[in-house]
Amino acid sequence: MYLHVERYIGVDIGGTNTKFGIVTREGELLYKIKYPTAELVASEDGYITAFSKVLKQILLEYPDIHKVGIGIPGLISNDRRSLLRLANIPSLSGASLLDELEALLPSVQFSLENDANAACLGEFYFSEHNLPDTFLMVTLGTGIGGAAIIHGKLFNGGHGNGVEVGHMLADKNSVYEDYISKKALVQYALDKLQNSEKYQDSILAQIPADELTTKDIESALKEKDKLAKKVFAHFGKWLGKNLVSSIRVLDIHTILLGGGVSKAFKYMEEPMMNEIKTYLDDYYTNDLVIQKASLKNEAGIIGAATLNF
Amino acid sequence: MYLHVERYIGVDIGGTNTKFGIVTREGELLYKIKYPTAELVASEDGYITAFSKVLKQILLEYPDIHKVGIGIPGLISNDRRSLLRLANIPSLSGASLLDELEALLPSVQFSLENDANAACLGEFYFSEHNLPDTFLMVTLGTGIGGAAIIHGKLFNGGHGNGVEVGHMLADKNSVYEDYISKKALVQYALDKLQNSEKYQDSILAQIPADELTTKDIESALKEKDKLAKKVFAHFGKWLGKNLVSSIRVLDIHTILLGGGVSKAFKYMEEPMMNEIKTYLDDYYTNDLVIQKASLKNEAGIIGAATLNF
Repeated sequence: MYLHVERYIGVDIGGTNTKFGIVTREGELLYKIKYPTAELVASEDGYITAFSKVLKQILLEYPDIHKVGIGIPGLISNDRRSLLRLANIPSLSGASLLDELEALLPSVQFSLENDANAACLGEFYFSEHNLPDTFLMVTLGTGIGGAAIIHGKLFNGGHGNGVEVGHMLADKNSVYEDYISKKALVQYALDKLQNSEKYQDSILAQIPADELTTKDIESALKEKDKLAKKVFAHFGKWLGKNLVSSIRVLDIHTILLGGGVSKAFKYMEEPMMNEIKTYLDDYYTNDLVIQKASLKNEAGIIGAATLNF
Repeated sequence: MYLHVERYIGVDIGGTNTKFGIVTREGELLYKIKYPTAELVASEDGYITAFSKVLKQILLEYPDIHKVGIGIPGLISNDRRSLLRLANIPSLSGASLLDELEALLPSVQFSLENDANAACLGEFYFSEHNLPDTFLMVTLGTGIGGAAIIHGKLFNGGHGNGVEVGHMLADKNSVYEDYISKKALVQYALDKLQNSEKYQDSILAQIPADELTTKDIESALKEKDKLAKKVFAHFGKWLGKNLVSSIRVLDIHTILLGGGVSKAFKYMEEPMMNEIKTYLDDYYTNDLVIQKASLKNEAGIIGAATLNF
């Protein structure tokens, strides 16, 4: 008996790498390959042509695949065909991506989404959690990504690029990304090391200031380092404030936290919940569930593939 | 020739008054009557029965009317039938309003919405502005009401009570209602009078502190009072910050400002726009339109009537 397995391509375009993968209808990642984005941008015919050549190669090897979903880190047009603004890949801003790809590969069906939305869809289809049809996903990484599924559908706001929760104002002169992002984590640790006697015996004090990374702080957590714990507690507090505002506007009571920083969730949870309980009453908190997203590293590829489900 | 005009009842339930009105399909208010809400609450059979008696009387006089829309100041159930939480009329919290009203008046079709949503729908149908099918309405009054229409439909968030923009966090320890509400306006004026020599010649300095109202400050604007202008400029700045966050989450580029305080819009506009231009790039600002709502006092009644359109 020949069992036909429907397969899809998912592409996760990031500032660092462009990752291509083959994903089954069941969310299994069968194959992946990545190229440095800068290399594709610098190639003779430019990023989009180089991108299409990689795809063509994969499609030759897997002739049963006809559908390619793409996640990109930035703003896209409301019709989901063009790129508007990509802070980390500025040369792609304004590109009519699907028009160009369809011209280069006419037999392929393309879909395009913001990467946070793609990852959120990936959870929607393949989460290990038993998710309701309405949830918010906040991705904590280099920046903050936000995406929401409401009544089973991606919520994109009025013009297609809503749920930018990391860019809400956190206080008079800052947005939330200034408090909850990898850069903010490192900066907060450095400030404490410089300005407080209390943390001079921290493991982190031994690392040169210009070499300190989020990973160092995460490793220090395992050694029960006081400063590392303080850094994530501070992160948790501001994450809690961010969620209060998101919940007030979106009225969503199930929240998934994705991205690298969410691995340290247990160190953020208590201060996060303190903020939430301070500002939200039981209408919001009675059924509130906040947990780590279940898809790991390749959530971006898998989510992008589901755009054609 | 007999011209049949379809008529609807709209009811605007407020903390102070419960207003009943008859509204035509064209948005004309033909008749209105109001009762102090506290009086209906205190009546022998309780608020809902008293409410139904008023309605019954009106329906006897206007037997062609069968549809009643109700706007309430608080959280309602996702199915739009029950009241969850009414801060200003706590005795109604938890009431199965439509079940009870349908039992008392079985021939009537009832609809229920949050009052900010009802007013937003009123603008949607009858605005003097040429509105797109996606806009945000922020009502600046005793509190801050938020409501959004996205692609021609009310957006209620995941559980039915979204767009509570006045309850987003404005800074470490405050929500926006602490900066932009009638109470905040008066408090800011009093603080300036107490703590700054600069405003001792303000008209407002002549009013006893415990008697100062928003109306006094609005009147002082007409006399070009420096403090009154400062108060509304401060309000405008925080309104701008609030809109930045709302726009980031909802991605809506047309905004209507309603409620009493919006009458002083021209004194708030410049500081408001300064904040918006500081934090939002041209993706958001190129087609951004922020203007006063066009329906005046009876927007609540008219909006409630449109719930059955």
